[in-house]
Amino acid sequence: MPVFDLTQHPHRRYNPLNGEWLLVSPHRALRPWQGQEEEPDTAARPPYDPTCYLCPGNGRANGTHNPKYTGTFVFDNDFAALRDDVPDGQLNKRELLRAEAETGLGRVICFSPRHDLTLPEMDVPAIRNVVDVWTEEYRTLGARADIGYVQIFENKGAAMGCSNPHPHGQIWAQRTVPGEPAKEGAQQLAYFQEHGRPLLADYLAVELEENQRVVLENEHWVALVPFWAVWPFETLLLPRRAVADLTQLSAAEKDGLADALRRLTIRYDNLFNTSFPYSAGLHQSPTDGEEHPEWHLHMHFYPPLLRSATVRKFMVGYELLGEPQRDITPEWAAEKLRNLSEVHYKQHTY
Amino acid sequence: MPVFDLTQHPHRRYNPLNGEWLLVSPHRALRPWQGQEEEPDTAARPPYDPTCYLCPGNGRANGTHNPKYTGTFVFDNDFAALRDDVPDGQLNKRELLRAEAETGLGRVICFSPRHDLTLPEMDVPAIRNVVDVWTEEYRTLGARADIGYVQIFENKGAAMGCSNPHPHGQIWAQRTVPGEPAKEGAQQLAYFQEHGRPLLADYLAVELEENQRVVLENEHWVALVPFWAVWPFETLLLPRRAVADLTQLSAAEKDGLADALRRLTIRYDNLFNTSFPYSAGLHQSPTDGEEHPEWHLHMHFYPPLLRSATVRKFMVGYELLGEPQRDITPEWAAEKLRNLSEVHYKQHTY
Ligand SMILES: O=P(O)(O)O[C@H]1O[C@H](CO)[C@@H](O)[C@H](O)[C@H]1O
Ligand SMILES: O=P(O)(O)O[C@H]1O[C@H](CO)[C@@H](O)[C@H](O)[C@H]1O
Repeated sequence: MPVFDLTQHPHRRYNPLNGEWLLVSPHRALRPWQGQEEEPDTAARPPYDPTCYLCPGNGRANGTHNPKYTGTFVFDNDFAALRDDVPDGQLNKRELLRAEAETGLGRVICFSPRHDLTLPEMDVPAIRNVVDVWTEEYRTLGARADIGYVQIFENKGAAMGCSNPHPHGQIWAQRTVPGEPAKEGAQQLAYFQEHGRPLLADYLAVELEENQRVVLENEHWVALVPFWAVWPFETLLLPRRAVADLTQLSAAEKDGLADALRRLTIRYDNLFNTSFPYSAGLHQSPTDGEEHPEWHLHMHFYPPLLRSATVRKFMVGYELLGEPQRDITPEWAAEKLRNLSEVHYKQHTY
Repeated sequence: MPVFDLTQHPHRRYNPLNGEWLLVSPHRALRPWQGQEEEPDTAARPPYDPTCYLCPGNGRANGTHNPKYTGTFVFDNDFAALRDDVPDGQLNKRELLRAEAETGLGRVICFSPRHDLTLPEMDVPAIRNVVDVWTEEYRTLGARADIGYVQIFENKGAAMGCSNPHPHGQIWAQRTVPGEPAKEGAQQLAYFQEHGRPLLADYLAVELEENQRVVLENEHWVALVPFWAVWPFETLLLPRRAVADLTQLSAAEKDGLADALRRLTIRYDNLFNTSFPYSAGLHQSPTDGEEHPEWHLHMHFYPPLLRSATVRKFMVGYELLGEPQRDITPEWAAEKLRNLSEVHYKQHTY
């Protein structure tokens, strides 16, 4: 029998960041696909859409009008999942039915006044403005005594439940630390207590040494396909310096984040010559007023496409009932992303 | 301020079966939807499709032909994610890059020779045949020394990644217990050690007492929307008698399961007058040769539709990066399902 080979044999990988396992089936990329295909996003959009509730000057569901903003624009979500006017309370029936009131709020961040742009089509200074808004929102919301965690994220593309193509992201901020960052926090704390160094700092060192899963680098940031990636082209964007949150980044590091965001999202669009759908978001320290030297700020990109602009990976039966499963190896995905141009496909002149 | 009210105020609920929390936002069901809509499945299908690789007598990818089966038909998946010819091996680089070879196999179960049927359109004896196949497969695969867990599931509908409408399910059987049943096993064991009774038996008693989330019952089974449901119309199908796996069910209990499956899936189809997509699957005891008195066999249904045959719930940004979130309460969903007819909408004569 041949020796065990990660590029060929089914195996499970461990995610030390959240403590969970996934199944990798490298040989399975070959199976034919006869199922649902996505609509590729080929709509040509105007720079301003009078029916868009995010465009400058337009009316919103709450009856107000957006300002004629020229950069970024942030407002309270008119349909937030979290509210701050919730009375305290809880339920506990024999430890089996347990519920607790939750308070918080939702914010929407328009990245640009231009209805027809997305992050990869914006320039670095414009993306840097988005980074600054994220930082200020995290700082201000996090300073509130009733906010213990600030989740910043973007759903891009109809395939990821995004209901408006105007470039925007969201913030859900709440009293409690939600499940995913809670798991990551516990794993990072345990590692820090054992090794005296942040888990992701050590992980980044291993990745730079192996140089198999790195997609792009600049002076301050590294984008890589994590060894434990679940989504086909999932990436992790990490600052080289282990800081716990955005407010601890220097100006140069924020510029570096803007540069890395632009380059990574251009590569994504170039992979299948389509506006690449994803959910992405920042994980950072809880805002509980404590020091968190174990926390290493990072950004996850979870894109669903697998083989083309229309064929996605479905996280269904086995994935929901068993555990996450992937068909192509993270190393193969990283190589694909690494070999792509950083000139956006729409800018190519043929 | 009013008192805390589960039907109105955002709150978190705890899932004692897997140890995780979710966010419930009851007020959010009202937000308008402008995003992606699913294609409702209205295709009229022939009872036999010459191009279907699951229909009786037809050719398959591996070059063989299906028998002219008249009931159920089981075969090895031609594109299985798991294989049993994998050499043993592992990788561990500083506890950060960890992988282990995994062995196993994939099976496909055709529920019926009829290409145009689905479970809710089959009669109880035909569904009982499917239950018998599940039982025999669990018994036979589970008896193998190299199989520690048998995951039986069905992906129904294009929205759940199903690539062929011919009624069928799958089995992925493997050496290791995957993440979800591993979590459920640990939670059930801890509860059993503390209380001397299975967790789900006690939970079922509470649900029958409260009678708010029960959808349907027969002599041996109860279908309910669990207090901690994540998907809008998620249900849990539980045998009244706490058995660890299918092989411990009596003939009457297997008939009861077939009856409950038919009635539950008819209600699902009737909810939006559409062939209701879902991923569903059985969780039962690991096949490690040990006794598992803590394990209570059950079946999960995870259906994505939220408001109509075309509007689904997206598990995206916050759900992937924070924690699962739902817009309608489990109690409201249970009431909707409870009030539906058990005559399939296609059978109605107007
Ligand atoms: O095996 P199928 O039906 O081709 O594939 C489907 O179910 C599998 C098991 O849940 C998933 O891994 C695939 O993403 C999905 O498309
Ligand atoms: O808030 P939106 O963009 O309307 O809604 C989208 O993102 C939310 C946060 O991930 C999800 O809960 C919704 O299911 C999704 O459709």
